[in-house]
Amino acid sequence: MSAVQLPADLVTPCLVVDAAILDANIAAMAGLAGERGLDLRPHAKTHKCLPIADRQLAAGARGLTVATVAEAEIFAAGGCTDLFVAYPVWADAHRGARLRALAERVALRVGVDSATGAEALGRAVPGLEVLVEIDSGHHRTGVAAADVRAVAVAAERAGLHVRGVFTFPGHSYAPDAARAAAADEAVTLSAAAEELVALGLDAGVRSGGSTPSAAHTGAGLTEVRPGVYVFGDAQQWELGTIGTDGLALVAAGTVVSRSPGRVVLDAGSKVLGADRPAWASGFGRVPGQPDARVVALSEHHATVTWPDGEPPALGAVIALAPNHVCAAVNLADELVVVRAGQVVDRWPVAARGANT
Amino acid sequence: MSAVQLPADLVTPCLVVDAAILDANIAAMAGLAGERGLDLRPHAKTHKCLPIADRQLAAGARGLTVATVAEAEIFAAGGCTDLFVAYPVWADAHRGARLRALAERVALRVGVDSATGAEALGRAVPGLEVLVEIDSGHHRTGVAAADVRAVAVAAERAGLHVRGVFTFPGHSYAPDAARAAAADEAVTLSAAAEELVALGLDAGVRSGGSTPSAAHTGAGLTEVRPGVYVFGDAQQWELGTIGTDGLALVAAGTVVSRSPGRVVLDAGSKVLGADRPAWASGFGRVPGQPDARVVALSEHHATVTWPDGEPPALGAVIALAPNHVCAAVNLADELVVVRAGQVVDRWPVAARGANT
Repeated sequence: MSAVQLPADLVTPCLVVDAAILDANIAAMAGLAGERGLDLRPHAKTHKCLPIADRQLAAGARGLTVATVAEAEIFAAGGCTDLFVAYPVWADAHRGARLRALAERVALRVGVDSATGAEALGRAVPGLEVLVEIDSGHHRTGVAAADVRAVAVAAERAGLHVRGVFTFPGHSYAPDAARAAAADEAVTLSAAAEELVALGLDAGVRSGGSTPSAAHTGAGLTEVRPGVYVFGDAQQWELGTIGTDGLALVAAGTVVSRSPGRVVLDAGSKVLGADRPAWASGFGRVPGQPDARVVALSEHHATVTWPDGEPPALGAVIALAPNHVCAAVNLADELVVVRAGQVVDRWPVAARGANT
Repeated sequence: MSAVQLPADLVTPCLVVDAAILDANIAAMAGLAGERGLDLRPHAKTHKCLPIADRQLAAGARGLTVATVAEAEIFAAGGCTDLFVAYPVWADAHRGARLRALAERVALRVGVDSATGAEALGRAVPGLEVLVEIDSGHHRTGVAAADVRAVAVAAERAGLHVRGVFTFPGHSYAPDAARAAAADEAVTLSAAAEELVALGLDAGVRSGGSTPSAAHTGAGLTEVRPGVYVFGDAQQWELGTIGTDGLALVAAGTVVSRSPGRVVLDAGSKVLGADRPAWASGFGRVPGQPDARVVALSEHHATVTWPDGEPPALGAVIALAPNHVCAAVNLADELVVVRAGQVVDRWPVAARGANT
């Protein structure tokens, strides 16, 4: 069974959110963080929607995480007063001016991962609070725990206020990797925090977290920043993080072409996104037909093999879970909100395309 | 050297189009089609921009190809009077009404690939002109040439007017595959057209074409529908279809993090798209540094290895060619237009997200 019950008369392709499943996901993560004594600061890049941010904050989130200054501006305008830009922002003149304006309105923190970046940020936004980004094994941005001192010292000299450390344990996005990634995260954040303490600096924030590792995270942390958990997606399903009953968002696609054992839906990569990690079984999944596989994806075509029984008829509307829900949401102007199969609202994706 | 000369003071990430290279690409494809006596009907899903459609039409294109009814509506509103929806549109009540409105304003053709789809279309839009979609080897939508009769007869019975056949030789998107794909296209379209002629139906349009196969296409066709050629992208570069001097569009990204031999840019999958065919060397290419590789891509991070010489400094702005330019453009609200490194215009991506 599809988790989300699709309403009749949808104009496909579109993204459909089940408000009841969404609320359950929000409550479950708030409960998990609360039980472990962790601040929850959900990553809003997943949903980019003000009504969802409101629900997360109402459920106890301390503030929001965002990836870009533009996202921070949109959620600040929407009423969020506590924002962390979990990114080593390069503070050129343009972005510096925008950060200064933001810092006057809301409690703002920004990531740094280099002395040079900290110096640019300090010149642009004197007195800004920062967290030093640590690489806990994902090997993207962030410094090794042993190198945190150089960045922190440069930040303080540049007039920034170091408030702690953060990491993204992105290596949790692989089969059976979540527990080890959470352990890496705990060890690395703790070691980095000790470096700050040894310098006499504030290590009060030790922030980590991801949706796959959430069940294993906590030791040594003060805060978690999962994003995808609000909706779930095919990746989380295939990683075992959620079941189909936890999928709060699906793409609805119409069968436009059909041949024995397969159908083509009108929800392609311009709706689902083209994300496909090597371990994924395809370009998305069909919650109502777990044996189906999205074997090919082009801009307006999802080719779905249908091994069991008769494939759906031409004109049938099918729910597809995108592989990576953050990418899918960023392609949509609005989310169609349903309860028990009835459309109850449409939420603008307010921060769609807010990349700068 | 990067094909596009980036202006100073860009707000990154953003997409930058060099108008001179764009115009040269448009002229070259118009010339190729003209030499071969083919109608050129460029696929507008690549650029989604009215000023680019105007340039293509001014250069001699007969009309535009689009993928969706929504795209057709936008280009019709922008003044295009001849549109082909190269897609087996499922004509439910909503889409049927929109197609009827469009058919009253412009010369409109739509694809069909099933008797059932043709019947629905005929009920919704009596008298509409259609082309039957043929599978020439890409194995997505379309019928085998031998099955064209059943679809064409159903279409005529449903009150549609069959005007010929079309195919997308998408199997040209692989190394050294373009010539064979063009040959498949010619054989299949010709065979399908013969089926129509045998039925006494109009086979006047035999439409094919793709950017990789364009240099080899023509025999047996009356029309070509390439899209990507206006901009080029990393896929076309790696397939050998274009050189870096033909890249009219790049993403501009700022170096936000740096370690020996690699940099991280702020142009991630929410700017470039996540398309990566198995044969691609990475998630995009750096025109100014052909040995660089985009080894990882997340939403706001492109991790680029830089084997030769010192990687660019923090804060440097780098041009990246997306793998698939259609996906990148669909993520942007506007294109920054430059000539000789100076910003001369900004073009709205009018049909961004026009998926329905």
